Amino acid sequence: MQRTPRAKVVAVCTNLPHELEWARNNEEYKEYGISVYEDYEDMLNHEGLQAVWVSTSTDVHAIQTLKGVEKGLHVLCEKPLSTDMEEAQGVVDAAAKKPHLKVMAAFSRRFDESYRNAAKKILEDRVIGKPFMVRAQTGDLLDTTGFFVRYATRNGGIFVDCAIHDIDLTLWYLDDPIPKACWATGVLQFHPELAAANDVDNAIGVLVIGTEGKITVNLVPKANNVVMYDKRGITHEVQEEYWHRFENAFATEAHEFVESIYRDTPVPLPLSKGLKVMEIARALQSALWSGEVTRWNEEGKLVSAGEKPATSEANGHAK
Amino acid sequence: MQRTPRAKVVAVCTNLPHELEWARNNEEYKEYGISVYEDYEDMLNHEGLQAVWVSTSTDVHAIQTLKGVEKGLHVLCEKPLSTDMEEAQGVVDAAAKKPHLKVMAAFSRRFDESYRNAAKKILEDRVIGKPFMVRAQTGDLLDTTGFFVRYATRNGGIFVDCAIHDIDLTLWYLDDPIPKACWATGVLQFHPELAAANDVDNAIGVLVIGTEGKITVNLVPKANNVVMYDKRGITHEVQEEYWHRFENAFATEAHEFVESIYRDTPVPLPLSKGLKVMEIARALQSALWSGEVTRWNEEGKLVSAGEKPATSEANGHAK
Amino acid sequence: MQRTPRAKVVAVCTNLPHELEWARNNEEYKEYGISVYEDYEDMLNHEGLQAVWVSTSTDVHAIQTLKGVEKGLHVLCEKPLSTDMEEAQGVVDAAAKKPHLKVMAAFSRRFDESYRNAAKKILEDRVIGKPFMVRAQTGDLLDTTGFFVRYATRNGGIFVDCAIHDIDLTLWYLDDPIPKACWATGVLQFHPELAAANDVDNAIGVLVIGTEGKITVNLVPKANNVVMYDKRGITHEVQEEYWHRFENAFATEAHEFVESIYRDTPVPLPLSKGLKVMEIARALQSALWSGEVTRWNEEGKLVSAGEKPATSEANGHAK
Amino acid sequence: MQRTPRAKVVAVCTNLPHELEWARNNEEYKEYGISVYEDYEDMLNHEGLQAVWVSTSTDVHAIQTLKGVEKGLHVLCEKPLSTDMEEAQGVVDAAAKKPHLKVMAAFSRRFDESYRNAAKKILEDRVIGKPFMVRAQTGDLLDTTGFFVRYATRNGGIFVDCAIHDIDLTLWYLDDPIPKACWATGVLQFHPELAAANDVDNAIGVLVIGTEGKITVNLVPKANNVVMYDKRGITHEVQEEYWHRFENAFATEAHEFVESIYRDTPVPLPLSKGLKVMEIARALQSALWSGEVTRWNEEGKLVSAGEKPATSEANGHAK
Repeated sequence: MQRTPRAKVVAVCTNLPHELEWARNNEEYKEYGISVYEDYEDMLNHEGLQAVWVSTSTDVHAIQTLKGVEKGLHVLCEKPLSTDMEEAQGVVDAAAKKPHLKVMAAFSRRFDESYRNAAKKILEDRVIGKPFMVRAQTGDLLDTTGFFVRYATRNGGIFVDCAIHDIDLTLWYLDDPIPKACWATGVLQFHPELAAANDVDNAIGVLVIGTEGKITVNLVPKANNVVMYDKRGITHEVQEEYWHRFENAFATEAHEFVESIYRDTPVPLPLSKGLKVMEIARALQSALWSGEVTRWNEEGKLVSAGEKPATSEANGHAK
Repeated sequence: MQRTPRAKVVAVCTNLPHELEWARNNEEYKEYGISVYEDYEDMLNHEGLQAVWVSTSTDVHAIQTLKGVEKGLHVLCEKPLSTDMEEAQGVVDAAAKKPHLKVMAAFSRRFDESYRNAAKKILEDRVIGKPFMVRAQTGDLLDTTGFFVRYATRNGGIFVDCAIHDIDLTLWYLDDPIPKACWATGVLQFHPELAAANDVDNAIGVLVIGTEGKITVNLVPKANNVVMYDKRGITHEVQEEYWHRFENAFATEAHEFVESIYRDTPVPLPLSKGLKVMEIARALQSALWSGEVTRWNEEGKLVSAGEKPATSEANGHAK
Repeated sequence: MQRTPRAKVVAVCTNLPHELEWARNNEEYKEYGISVYEDYEDMLNHEGLQAVWVSTSTDVHAIQTLKGVEKGLHVLCEKPLSTDMEEAQGVVDAAAKKPHLKVMAAFSRRFDESYRNAAKKILEDRVIGKPFMVRAQTGDLLDTTGFFVRYATRNGGIFVDCAIHDIDLTLWYLDDPIPKACWATGVLQFHPELAAANDVDNAIGVLVIGTEGKITVNLVPKANNVVMYDKRGITHEVQEEYWHRFENAFATEAHEFVESIYRDTPVPLPLSKGLKVMEIARALQSALWSGEVTRWNEEGKLVSAGEKPATSEANGHAK
Repeated sequence: MQRTPRAKVVAVCTNLPHELEWARNNEEYKEYGISVYEDYEDMLNHEGLQAVWVSTSTDVHAIQTLKGVEKGLHVLCEKPLSTDMEEAQGVVDAAAKKPHLKVMAAFSRRFDESYRNAAKKILEDRVIGKPFMVRAQTGDLLDTTGFFVRYATRNGGIFVDCAIHDIDLTLWYLDDPIPKACWATGVLQFHPELAAANDVDNAIGVLVIGTEGKITVNLVPKANNVVMYDKRGITHEVQEEYWHRFENAFATEAHEFVESIYRDTPVPLPLSKGLKVMEIARALQSALWSGEVTRWNEEGKLVSAGEKPATSEANGHAK
């Protein structure tokens, strides 16, 4: 509403009762004349609608993107496109048949000033030589609201949902290398309920891919420029959630999506770009489940992958 | 254009030939339908104009604000309102006669997230006890384009133009204390041409006003979240100019000004707020010129102040 | 010489010609009356010798410690005790038979103020809850002198020689947990000659062992308190080598070893403490060589481990 | 005892009962055979004594240094030599008559690795151009033991006792420029008892003396390399007192003093070096008392200086 002046928010949709209630009573929505829908297809029929931003849970990303495309709408779909490779490929194929539509994968980190302008430029200019290794860790503050656990069950696991940004970043910064092998492990420290979803809340994955320096991005996070000095020492606050860290990245992402529609230029991040990232995320998730190493052959084809166990008892990870 | 969706930029004005040329050839201006004026009064007559943002050189702030008010326009006037106390008071009085108009002083730092939300809150919550001293230094990267020197001659001196933010911050954070005395000194290290304007390029001023900790804001500036490690050590970049540091603050400032018009609420920073800041800035500038201490009496009235010398020879500061 | 006032350096020994020459011409050595030996056993016969500090290459740590013990000398042996588990056990057994001798494992990081006083205390006081995961990376500046490669061939590989500190740290901070599994990988980016030694110059190992916060130690290294601001940005220097970072830790280590002799108290770090660290380091090294997961059973016994390949061709790691 | 292997501590002296008791019961003192004296002259007669380190309160520095020199002892005298210029000159003259004695001014900051090796080298190499301004602030943690106030009454005031390091640093880094003018102010926020001593607990002094960058030393102090991340944010501890910050500097200072005796080389910091520093410190202290600007003429002679007021009522500073 506030950050993309060339796009006008005309409708929103959710099927969660408390979100519906919140939206229907929102004063700003009324002021801006925004319609609130409970049914996604109803919203797609909103008169004059030109584009959709899909930011629902992962298990419906693909079907919602597909429906948008079928209606002839431009679609900005949040990462990842699906938890299922075939389903994801199906959407990519459908979008390919309508090349006049802008269908874009939303990996917000690629639109962040630090990652995109400063770090990527340093890498491209070979200021630190040839990059050969990426160490990435996405850490969120502990969620005590229950949201994360409810959400996790529909999102394909910690690697597919969270670490996917780190995988995308690695492929991006190392120029899409062919993966060789991966292994993963993890622990359940805070959300034991995740055992039912065969997931963990702290995971480590190692991905093998592969000179004069290194760069770090946001190694020591800061919420703002304020530092406090008191008896305890010197302290600064941290962003409470990814939105605070990446608000400008999301605004840039949406802005560039909108501009690609206005100017009929390619979207900055085509939908297909996310497929390799998904494959690796799922391989790491499989390694987490099986405890075994997953490998790719020299052509970059997966040659072995653990399968999701029937019950959480089969998990190889520590509890 | 991009950051205040509820306001529409319809016209801009400058009398500098190179700025005019740039503006007249600007593709985005054409796309957005923005008129370019050479004459300020012509712009004020632009049909449908509702508000003006005055961000010219200081010596014309007052007269341009006055003209806007006389035309019945809302005005957002950049700091400081004037280099002359009487002229400034005249504008405050004129605005007071048209209370339906929103006339606002633009001290951008007051709209910065770090200064406003984090630091101000820590102070108000007495997290670090009662504040009693502010150490402030505004440092810009060295300007090698000549712009700073050209601009400086019209802006009332280094304290009135630059340190005014630090003075405003001090009054704001210490709850508008009565000043007691001030002294200042400075050197000409980079811009000897400033001697003709009786100014310096590095100044120190001490202002006397007046428990369990301290806070710093932006003590170690960073342009982004990227840190580079190479043979030289560990390095991060710094913002090249105040705009990069304060872009969000300016956007918030403009947004809140616009909202005060839509909702007919008081502007967040009334024009009169800047008068005391100006008085202190000018007292420091006088102390710089005379080399003597400037004092206020217990009621907060200035009791002595050096006068601007006729020639730069009379300056007390080091060269 | 300078940092352990209660111990007197009386003799040094090396069989490297250039070190011998340097030592024999050292003015300070002459001033302090320090004898220079070419043969280790000759040095052990130095009249009045009471203790030996073994800081040679890893392949002779065990035999030199054993000889010192046999001569009835106290021994401070640098990490790791050996590259061979049986040999290491032999030294531990021999030392156990002479309990009046102080025989100590020198893991310098355990004597560093930050690791020992600050971090360990935070963990023990449960300030950040119960620790469950250690991310550790030891990064040295690139060695361009050839020393690292020459030295590497005698030291058992990157995990046994370098990452052993990270393993020791992990066991120390998590209170000696039973390991479950490990996997490792690595690349040869800078020292291709290491291929002959089946080693890599950048390795990642994952070790599975297993609430309210986290701590970092030396995440952003600094050589001193000086920060430089110039056109490139804001920069500080990094220590050039581990000695600069850990000089005080080594001094404390030596001091506490000497005090344990004077006061006849247990050494701060018994020799046997290093055995489990060695086992894990070798398991990671095996995983690096085989590309397979190495596992421990529930009693903490190794159940599978890759073997060192006959040639470097067999390595699973990227080149 | 521990940090200067070439010097042996043989005796200590204090006239404070609780310090005497502590020293007489100190196990380490007994172990090292250190005599404890109540009377300074008695200690000077200790058999075999060769050098004295005077680190008492400022009002007896001069007389104790003088007595040491008269006894034919080398003396390391803590800063400042005196609170009285004439007395200080007297000691310098007395030491000059015995050139075989090493009599040294102990400004510990000059022996700190960051100030001396890194910062001084950057300045001398003109890495940041020609230095022209030093901003210095010495901040101690709040002392709640009462020690600071007791001690303050004998030490000549906040500029003479504390800021003297900042003045010394300024002269050192700017190559002993001729001062022009100074002004000072301060507040009593924490120790109102200091009013009786005409002193303040927070002071600001400006000293006028005097291109491509800047350096900071210890701008953000850290006690160690540990950083803690928890709900409050990211925190590191600060040194609790100057000793923790400057222990290595004091060890280096003592070591170099001892070496100058062994090798009969000039002391690194002659006693006379402190005289100009003292003069400026006292001028700032006078400016604090009088509220007036103190000036030097072009030859560097003081031309005006406020006098110490008879009572604290006469102070110009805020309360």
